[in-house]
Amino acid sequence: MTSAVRRNPSGARDGREPAGSRDDGGAGPAGGHEAAAVLEGSRAAVDPELRSAIDSLPGSLRRVALHHFGWEHADGTPAAGNAGKAIRPALVLAAAAALGGPAARAVAVRAAAAVELVHNFTLLHDDVMDRDTTRRHRPTAWTVFGDADAILAGDALQALALGMLAADPHPASAAAAARVAACVVELCAGQQADTAMERRGPTEITLEEVLAMAEAKTGALLGCACAVGALYAGATEADVDALDAFGREAGLAFQLIDDVIGIWGDPRQTGKPAGADLAARKKSLPVVAALTSGTPAAAELAELYAAPYRPADLDRTTLAVERAGGRAWAQEQAADRMSRALHELTRAVPDPEAAGGLLSLAEFVTRRNA
Amino acid sequence: MTSAVRRNPSGARDGREPAGSRDDGGAGPAGGHEAAAVLEGSRAAVDPELRSAIDSLPGSLRRVALHHFGWEHADGTPAAGNAGKAIRPALVLAAAAALGGPAARAVAVRAAAAVELVHNFTLLHDDVMDRDTTRRHRPTAWTVFGDADAILAGDALQALALGMLAADPHPASAAAAARVAACVVELCAGQQADTAMERRGPTEITLEEVLAMAEAKTGALLGCACAVGALYAGATEADVDALDAFGREAGLAFQLIDDVIGIWGDPRQTGKPAGADLAARKKSLPVVAALTSGTPAAAELAELYAAPYRPADLDRTTLAVERAGGRAWAQEQAADRMSRALHELTRAVPDPEAAGGLLSLAEFVTRRNA
Repeated sequence: MTSAVRRNPSGARDGREPAGSRDDGGAGPAGGHEAAAVLEGSRAAVDPELRSAIDSLPGSLRRVALHHFGWEHADGTPAAGNAGKAIRPALVLAAAAALGGPAARAVAVRAAAAVELVHNFTLLHDDVMDRDTTRRHRPTAWTVFGDADAILAGDALQALALGMLAADPHPASAAAAARVAACVVELCAGQQADTAMERRGPTEITLEEVLAMAEAKTGALLGCACAVGALYAGATEADVDALDAFGREAGLAFQLIDDVIGIWGDPRQTGKPAGADLAARKKSLPVVAALTSGTPAAAELAELYAAPYRPADLDRTTLAVERAGGRAWAQEQAADRMSRALHELTRAVPDPEAAGGLLSLAEFVTRRNA
Repeated sequence: MTSAVRRNPSGARDGREPAGSRDDGGAGPAGGHEAAAVLEGSRAAVDPELRSAIDSLPGSLRRVALHHFGWEHADGTPAAGNAGKAIRPALVLAAAAALGGPAARAVAVRAAAAVELVHNFTLLHDDVMDRDTTRRHRPTAWTVFGDADAILAGDALQALALGMLAADPHPASAAAAARVAACVVELCAGQQADTAMERRGPTEITLEEVLAMAEAKTGALLGCACAVGALYAGATEADVDALDAFGREAGLAFQLIDDVIGIWGDPRQTGKPAGADLAARKKSLPVVAALTSGTPAAAELAELYAAPYRPADLDRTTLAVERAGGRAWAQEQAADRMSRALHELTRAVPDPEAAGGLLSLAEFVTRRNA
């Protein structure tokens, strides 16, 4: 059920916490069920292609990839598999279906797998750079296999992805490969901006910078996934671009809400300790919005962020972000981005029935609780 | 002048030191001049394409790439450029010319630039993994910009390379992209094997393993470069495969000779201190051949390699590799590989005139002194 979003094309979301709980406002569970079915159908179609691509790797690299995707334990024994929600391949297939029906969806499966490989290549490398030790509730590849193997497995996944597209006989495959390659450059620039910002003081960062970073790091690949689906449906250039814009805007909405959850989310639902983002002094979107608000609360927040984290200050810090307008700004921005996303989608796919899969996914990513 | 090699198709190379000096035996200087002209002509054609690809990168990544290619100093001021010998793009163009004449060479320039981008992406990443601090007489990217930027610039160069091929309207571009992507996977497996061997004892490594590693790490991309050139000339599958085999075998010959130089090369010509490879306990091809020879000298070498390096032991170590047959084996292997390379080349390009560029390059890489 996507009516909650479609009902409010202006972007107003009734002041509801967009992601605090799956069953807020009544629309969540139904929308969640719909999206769950879309994701499950996509996984059933894409997983065999993904698995066969990874199985084609030489043993040493295959081992790292199988562990990363959750198909093998570190010791090489089979695992149940926990490769995340796989939103991106679902977007590829939903976009293909929206613009070309089931036939387009069927021929886009390989491209969907390629997009998921690209996403996972960036995760493998980001985890090395960010020294993140946990991903999908499992130890990250570099902690298990070392930096070199994690970097090399990521390199190989990028090559697999672009090689699969190049070898795909579909007439749109070359355009899709070029688009995915351009997106990889953008993802790299986004991650570069992110790591560079880590080294700067919190008051040296503008809201434009952090929005541009989030668009490059998160929006670009969601947009690219939708655009690739549209290409495989034989869509016009204008429709391909509209689908890209839809995915980009939905991606930014997703990031804004993710950042809100990172501060105000329920630890029982996020699985992360309360205030983890603030404790880590993360320059997330609501925090930068608060810091650049010119309010007294902004000055207080800057002072708190300049000092090392003390648990006793958590409540004060959280409140400062809120009082400086960081939370309200992020929620309004998210609603505004989602509204823009829906506008772009309606332009390319006026029939709500055809757009159903994309709408469910967009609502899912902006209304989740973890 | 490539007659020195062509004169001896059996592979015997008159017992000459293949790379101790450029002007040994008289054939070197002429062959070197020929190859220098081929390399220079290739660089003149490929550099603008390469430069424009790199200029298309977002600023932060472009800066790293420009420094890596020697076009900018670390502070961003322009530099004269020292991007290595650029053998691989020269092989692409020479292979295209050998099988399709000047017209094929002209349309293969973008593919040649793509292959050079792939090579440099692997260098950027290898330097991070191997903690190498100098490349082309300049500090490596990770020492200047940090690990994250070096990894991201490498990722972006791979994307640029495969994206350029995907967007190339030439009818062979998709096949070339698929081939380059498969080669990247092989390069990654080769580097993985190399880093894994670093962690093992010198007597635990077989000659087959180290030969397979060298083929994946060095032979694969030289073979791929030749194959891509053949594809752009519209060659038959058999000829494409023959050119790949030519490049692979020449690449192995190159590596064998490189390893010989690493032990017996003249420091005044190699630019590296005498015995640097032995001091670093490198498990190079002659060393592993010596260690696995079953001779008394092999036992002596194993004992020396098991202890930390002492300059006083250098002469004894060098002599042990030689007495265990490591040097003779490597030279015979190199000659044998070169003979196989020429056999493959003759199969695809029987006209020595047409094959001239490839012959010059093959002789150059196996007869160089640094």
